[in-house]
Amino acid sequence: MRRIAKYDFPVSGVRRFLEPGPIVLVSSQCKGERNIMTLGWHVVLEFTPSLIGLMISSANHSFGMIRASGECVVNLPTTALTDIVVGIGNTSGAEIDKFAHFGLTAEQASAVAAPLIAECHAAFECRLHDDVLVDTYNFFIFEVVKAHVAPRPKHPQTLHYTGDGVFMVAGKTISRKSLFRPGML
Amino acid sequence: MRRIAKYDFPVSGVRRFLEPGPIVLVSSQCKGERNIMTLGWHVVLEFTPSLIGLMISSANHSFGMIRASGECVVNLPTTALTDIVVGIGNTSGAEIDKFAHFGLTAEQASAVAAPLIAECHAAFECRLHDDVLVDTYNFFIFEVVKAHVAPRPKHPQTLHYTGDGVFMVAGKTISRKSLFRPGML
Repeated sequence: MRRIAKYDFPVSGVRRFLEPGPIVLVSSQCKGERNIMTLGWHVVLEFTPSLIGLMISSANHSFGMIRASGECVVNLPTTALTDIVVGIGNTSGAEIDKFAHFGLTAEQASAVAAPLIAECHAAFECRLHDDVLVDTYNFFIFEVVKAHVAPRPKHPQTLHYTGDGVFMVAGKTISRKSLFRPGML
Repeated sequence: MRRIAKYDFPVSGVRRFLEPGPIVLVSSQCKGERNIMTLGWHVVLEFTPSLIGLMISSANHSFGMIRASGECVVNLPTTALTDIVVGIGNTSGAEIDKFAHFGLTAEQASAVAAPLIAECHAAFECRLHDDVLVDTYNFFIFEVVKAHVAPRPKHPQTLHYTGDGVFMVAGKTISRKSLFRPGML
């Protein structure tokens, strides 16, 4: 599988990749153990600081690791990884090392201990910002502290989960920039 | 513009439409006034009760109306409404009646006072469930109490905002159902 070279990207701009609603792969590390989970329930909350919310069900093996470490990396896979995305979502880190099992490469992050996934288009290093809703809704508010993005394609072919085993694949892009007021882009 | 007939849909199933991350139109009503805003910052939080989170910037005229009424309707537009979606996001309900200005039809909801938008593919009636993060993050947790969905197409051509005036349009769908464990769909 192809490892994708990524470059620094402004953390205030991660909405470009997350607001369209793709499935992401969340990698974590805790006490020497590493893991990956799939996640579709995420939301952008603020540009600066760069805040995102992740609903991580406590049924996931990753839940305890992310809670204890207060860190994770949100990685953006494309259709090149479709079957691996499904495989990651249908196995448990309690039983297998998902990096090894799925042939993914763990890369050293800059600001957190959790690894980046080299085969993904983008990777956002996250540090826990607020856990006020973790007990009640399994909802973590993270700050994206470092962003890595491949320079092209500008709009990667992401996967968008609809339930029942079906994904919508990102289609064409259209611009309506000329219809926007300058402050509203 | 075409009004779209919609039928009752299980509220526990709204993730099919919201998890892929489309731009939605949020309609509200308060003290006889009605309004619509565009929103891309939303997240599914739970199947049952059917909970969703909406980050509604307090800069929006709708913010006060939704907070005071504790209700809204999340409407799902398709590419047939692209220019109207942009128009709604670039005007203020403090200045115009957006239903009248954009030629949209307000339909009576079942469980809330806020109107449905007849020209949208789906409409989810929402009642405020938890406002604990409204002061700190403008983040509202709503329960979807009633869902209305057009029977076809099964996967509507939704709009997914990437910033900078550019939308990704929903592309083809692919199934990997055979690779899922039964409880993981």
